[in-house]
Amino acid sequence: MRSTTHERDYSGRGCARNALDLARRRPDRLRVEHRCRVDRPAAVVAGGSFCTSPSRCTGSKSVANCHFRNCRRACLPDLACLLGAAHNCRAANGRHRQGRRGHHGGSRGHADCGVLRHKFRSVTHPPGSPPTSSPITGEAAIIDILAPLTARFPGAFALKDDCAALVPTPGYDLVLKTDAVAEGVHFFADDAASDIGWKALAVNVSDLVAKGARPRVYLMALAFPAPPSLHWLRDFARGLEQAQTCFGITLAGGDTDRRHGPLSITIAAIGEVPAGRMVRRAAAEAGDLLYVSGTLGDAALGLKLRSDGSQAAQWELAPDDALALVRRYLRPEPRLALAPVLRDHARAAMDLSDGLVKDLGRMMQASGTAAVVHAAKVPLSKPAAAAQARTPALLIDVLTGGDDYEVLAAVAPDRAKSFEQAAAAAGIAVARIGETTPRRPEAGRVVVQDHDGRQLDLVRSGWDHF
Amino acid sequence: MRSTTHERDYSGRGCARNALDLARRRPDRLRVEHRCRVDRPAAVVAGGSFCTSPSRCTGSKSVANCHFRNCRRACLPDLACLLGAAHNCRAANGRHRQGRRGHHGGSRGHADCGVLRHKFRSVTHPPGSPPTSSPITGEAAIIDILAPLTARFPGAFALKDDCAALVPTPGYDLVLKTDAVAEGVHFFADDAASDIGWKALAVNVSDLVAKGARPRVYLMALAFPAPPSLHWLRDFARGLEQAQTCFGITLAGGDTDRRHGPLSITIAAIGEVPAGRMVRRAAAEAGDLLYVSGTLGDAALGLKLRSDGSQAAQWELAPDDALALVRRYLRPEPRLALAPVLRDHARAAMDLSDGLVKDLGRMMQASGTAAVVHAAKVPLSKPAAAAQARTPALLIDVLTGGDDYEVLAAVAPDRAKSFEQAAAAAGIAVARIGETTPRRPEAGRVVVQDHDGRQLDLVRSGWDHF
Repeated sequence: MRSTTHERDYSGRGCARNALDLARRRPDRLRVEHRCRVDRPAAVVAGGSFCTSPSRCTGSKSVANCHFRNCRRACLPDLACLLGAAHNCRAANGRHRQGRRGHHGGSRGHADCGVLRHKFRSVTHPPGSPPTSSPITGEAAIIDILAPLTARFPGAFALKDDCAALVPTPGYDLVLKTDAVAEGVHFFADDAASDIGWKALAVNVSDLVAKGARPRVYLMALAFPAPPSLHWLRDFARGLEQAQTCFGITLAGGDTDRRHGPLSITIAAIGEVPAGRMVRRAAAEAGDLLYVSGTLGDAALGLKLRSDGSQAAQWELAPDDALALVRRYLRPEPRLALAPVLRDHARAAMDLSDGLVKDLGRMMQASGTAAVVHAAKVPLSKPAAAAQARTPALLIDVLTGGDDYEVLAAVAPDRAKSFEQAAAAAGIAVARIGETTPRRPEAGRVVVQDHDGRQLDLVRSGWDHF
Repeated sequence: MRSTTHERDYSGRGCARNALDLARRRPDRLRVEHRCRVDRPAAVVAGGSFCTSPSRCTGSKSVANCHFRNCRRACLPDLACLLGAAHNCRAANGRHRQGRRGHHGGSRGHADCGVLRHKFRSVTHPPGSPPTSSPITGEAAIIDILAPLTARFPGAFALKDDCAALVPTPGYDLVLKTDAVAEGVHFFADDAASDIGWKALAVNVSDLVAKGARPRVYLMALAFPAPPSLHWLRDFARGLEQAQTCFGITLAGGDTDRRHGPLSITIAAIGEVPAGRMVRRAAAEAGDLLYVSGTLGDAALGLKLRSDGSQAAQWELAPDDALALVRRYLRPEPRLALAPVLRDHARAAMDLSDGLVKDLGRMMQASGTAAVVHAAKVPLSKPAAAAQARTPALLIDVLTGGDDYEVLAAVAPDRAKSFEQAAAAAGIAVARIGETTPRRPEAGRVVVQDHDGRQLDLVRSGWDHF
């Protein structure tokens, strides 16, 4: 190893961002091992969900509006998380809400984000000498790196058994989901390994949450075209650990194969819901009001930017805004706090992964209803709104691009107010975007109207692999 | 479609096998839609698990020694299954045991198999016109074909929801497993789709069974490099349905992606075990006796034959014997009836998938023990024994080749007799192959001795992807 190690202090966002940029562009040159300190207990915004105040965090589940069950760990995301939160914050608009104990905020608000101050250790390496780049030898070495992810779940037997044992909670049903992410389809080969790990877990947890469930454990099947490096695998595990902490879920077991083709991660996630209370997709009724959480289209635009950064200039986006959109693509944030709200107030719900129009069509098809969506009511983040203002054609990406991982809910009109209030109390922004109608001319039909009530002619409804 | 359809009667095994051979070699020319009738209630053998007496089958769970909970369905496997059973039968040796109601047998026995008589409808097609070969369009079409696999599990919501809901059985723990199979690694691209489906499920169920669990439901993530044809997907679903019926497990949900690379099927299987009773890998103690179920090495030799059929002549194998070995590779048969026996009598257990020496090493490593295996005591099927007699070097494949999907168990000496009796009562052959020792010189060490007690020098221990 020809690496050299330095300790550096980065104070203030600018320095931190420069370091982050270097780490992103040249992960072989700079790896960030963070210790962060936030001077002010500022909020996280735009549906964002990072707690930025580790020093005041109790880790208690009873903290008002805390989105995470293990807050202490969630307070120490990597530098990228913190910057992402800050960017979201600057990009948002609206009111700012503080948690009861003053250190959590969750609404879409133009908040005072405080000044993030970072003190971390950066490890620099000369070109051509990526850190710990030796490939893994043997499945046992992979298990050794992943086993700490099971630390909170004794039933995983530290990945030293063939199966895991899960003791169900009496009075609860299990909610089951499997979803895979693959290089070239769901992520880019040069995405940070920690982002890939985060995303693989987040897309599954997003489904559980939309069904009103609390995540518990997951199984993970990895397929590598070649043995990964120790460095890559550790970073991947780090992203998973961050996601686990945020989502309150734990690795229970897995399988690792080597095969040609893309790197892929297939997760099967298990959550819990009070018996018989899983929120169904097929339960919407004509006349229900349709809501979505957070903002839509950010990830779809982020994907475009991730593919071709020059589009930021075409859309006249500030660098921070562009980064915020890319971040939404890289690190979906399931709306954990919305799960009990959906159970209590929604008639039907599902997460949005393949695009609003396509997924809403699926809900309507399953429910035997149709829907009208008012395009002007679809909630946009400030960067997405800015981009669409410059390039109106981006509306199609917002409505059909997918990767939102927000919640779509159908709510009976007489429950609308209580749903909105409960969502607000949970710190999750929800927006009413339309309503369900009787099946005219057929079930599953989704009509999108502009602000004059004219029907928009969409060239596609969403993502379909086939 | 330029296809033509004929009804034909095939009576006697020879005719049926000819038809099977055609169906195997040219699935585009002949598709077998079977109706089978078995004249005599003959046994199934060599650890085999096909009931060959549909007319006398009750479908009751209480049938003595019935390995399957839904026997009526298991009685109608495809023609290949029946032939496979017959081949196993002819290949086996030892005693023959009938079930209490006279129509099930499960031991390794040289049984009178009766004469299988098949009446089935064959659909022939002119060359270049494969039946229903049009590719799938849209994920919804895939779901339509797979949804019937959920028919026995209302919590799957017929694949019309985003998640499944599982009501746990009070007093039981859940046992969780994920395992993937991929083209080019675990199966051949031109394997029958029904065999691929069977195998994908069997390799997961095998793990559950070795932990003493009863299978319940599974999730399945499919990755296709190109849209499959309707014909392929229906055949795949047929293999899954046969496996489901045999194993008493049901599809609960899934995910389908399209990506470059090999076709792969990732299953997460969930079983149940009385609370706290999962049979562990890490619980063996020095002095335990080591047992395996069935026969080892068949699948490893079958893989060699599947790769290069000319080896059958080198090993001087009869065609039926060669086919029996290939069949063991194509359709692993988890030892469902052994699950309660393991719970009641074994100290530690796991399934054998990566080769006896490697997997035993894992058990010893986890248990902090070492092991001695007596090569001469490793149980071989008649075809495997014949092949090894001609080609002694095949011993290494038997010991390390993998794909056995048999059970390895460590049993305390004072439980050995009761273990053997209970296994016999369950109709599963078990063979004592060695014993555990204190960790000398280190935990995980496995010594294989020949019949003179000399240590064999193995060039490898088993399969490792990395």
